Amino acid sequence: MAEIPFKERKVIAVIGDSIASKKTIEIAREVGVLIAERKGILVCGGLGGVMEAAAEGASSAGGLTIGILPVYEKEAANQHLDIVIPTGMGHARNVIITAFADGVIAIGGKFGTLSEIGHARSMGKFEIRKGGKIQADILQADTPRHAVSRLWKILETS
Amino acid sequence: MAEIPFKERKVIAVIGDSIASKKTIEIAREVGVLIAERKGILVCGGLGGVMEAAAEGASSAGGLTIGILPVYEKEAANQHLDIVIPTGMGHARNVIITAFADGVIAIGGKFGTLSEIGHARSMGKFEIRKGGKIQADILQADTPRHAVSRLWKILETS
Amino acid sequence: MAEIPFKERKVIAVIGDSIASKKTIEIAREVGVLIAERKGILVCGGLGGVMEAAAEGASSAGGLTIGILPVYEKEAANQHLDIVIPTGMGHARNVIITAFADGVIAIGGKFGTLSEIGHARSMGKFEIRKGGKIQADILQADTPRHAVSRLWKILETS
Amino acid sequence: MAEIPFKERKVIAVIGDSIASKKTIEIAREVGVLIAERKGILVCGGLGGVMEAAAEGASSAGGLTIGILPVYEKEAANQHLDIVIPTGMGHARNVIITAFADGVIAIGGKFGTLSEIGHARSMGKFEIRKGGKIQADILQADTPRHAVSRLWKILETS
Repeated sequence: MAEIPFKERKVIAVIGDSIASKKTIEIAREVGVLIAERKGILVCGGLGGVMEAAAEGASSAGGLTIGILPVYEKEAANQHLDIVIPTGMGHARNVIITAFADGVIAIGGKFGTLSEIGHARSMGKFEIRKGGKIQADILQADTPRHAVSRLWKILETS
Repeated sequence: MAEIPFKERKVIAVIGDSIASKKTIEIAREVGVLIAERKGILVCGGLGGVMEAAAEGASSAGGLTIGILPVYEKEAANQHLDIVIPTGMGHARNVIITAFADGVIAIGGKFGTLSEIGHARSMGKFEIRKGGKIQADILQADTPRHAVSRLWKILETS
Repeated sequence: MAEIPFKERKVIAVIGDSIASKKTIEIAREVGVLIAERKGILVCGGLGGVMEAAAEGASSAGGLTIGILPVYEKEAANQHLDIVIPTGMGHARNVIITAFADGVIAIGGKFGTLSEIGHARSMGKFEIRKGGKIQADILQADTPRHAVSRLWKILETS
Repeated sequence: MAEIPFKERKVIAVIGDSIASKKTIEIAREVGVLIAERKGILVCGGLGGVMEAAAEGASSAGGLTIGILPVYEKEAANQHLDIVIPTGMGHARNVIITAFADGVIAIGGKFGTLSEIGHARSMGKFEIRKGGKIQADILQADTPRHAVSRLWKILETS
């Protein structure tokens, strides 16, 4: 990891539910792996489900993983995070996640996810959304590889 | 206003853009009037556009209006608010607005609005959305009167 | 209450511990009464102890009382608040309280209280502190009446 | 840095003013160096003065540095941070800093600093304060070396 300084790496948020289907978990894990392969820093909400799977994938590929928790207790974090930041701010921690991220990938997800996307857009972030249940002008992708490569293309030309 | 104590009134958030079309402004104003007629407390983001029009409408009908600002400066608030709460928290103030509200009415709106709706749903709030550009399982309404009456019906039976 | 519009009233935060001695509770209640007599809006953290006693005092004297809760559950609020704003933001709700207040009165109190005073000062607020265990350049007062009258004098000349 | 995983390192917040005397800057820098020598992760508010000097010291000694900004703009950060987290939350970012840190070292400082200490104490953190202008039951230290060694002793036995 030493070759690219942390400060020059892209920060990618992966957001999604803390309880997710097996297929969604697999997608999240693969997204995490792909982010790490591109030397991105993965940030997530630090809990289970999509957050944990993405962190596990990124960590397994040697990437740096950061979790921003809604609670004060570091013990609530999943086991695949290098840095755990407890905020005690509940849903407001989502604002921090999207402010921090250069790009956001939402996987599966319902309204809790939507809220983070909303913030991301209003702050000029780009995101690529897996799963398709969302309105037309948010970019969509059919596979993790597609999502990550498209996001990187956007980030590198913006 | 004295007949119903504040603590027994419904708190309704009206959310929408700070820059809006004339038609959206008219809708927002009418929504504000209707909320006040039902003795609801109107809460909004405290700035211009939809926020200001809804506050103006509610205030003109004798309702209590509260603005929760993203900045620290009270001077940024519109002139139709009884109580101005500056938070200095940027987008995170949207979390407070939806946590505070018993129901949310979104008017027009794009992603900044979406973010508030997202939080509202994830905290079990109900909302009725004007303008139609949103996914199917959020309730929609064709007129301000329809939106407010439907929201009240939901709140009173929940 | 109707004679002075809410928007023209001073907003005074009363801060202190949720568990307090009988004497501190009495002081808090009296401070609440005095704020209401001057038509101030009382804001507090919404829970028990000093917060509840000040709200009870203000409410008994016909004043408007607002509680800004650290949690999402309105049920956590004490029974003497006209308006309950749940934030879900934990300690960060203290920042909102001091940003909202024109002046802060701290009663008794230890470090949780100190934190709010810190924010108040750094945003140019004035406060008068009861209880004396604090550094010299924060104004102190020996009685509730002294604290409230001195605070009002500062607010009216600033 | 690879020998100790990030997740096993102590996180130490260094807090203090963005404008500081030359002597305070020197102290902050030395504190940063000492934290890095013990493989601590340094977290600060990300701006200038004490924050920048501590980050520069830690970075020069090979330590990991994290800045948690009050604004949304990453460009506001000083140049000695490995990871920059913009929050847009103003003073509320101080709550995050102290929730994140295992220990807090305040250098110089006035009320903005005090606010962070207040939060730290109310969440059960320990701190050692340089500069002496603070009440008795917060631990004090006469030199950077004394502060850091004493803090580590507390953290390792707690």
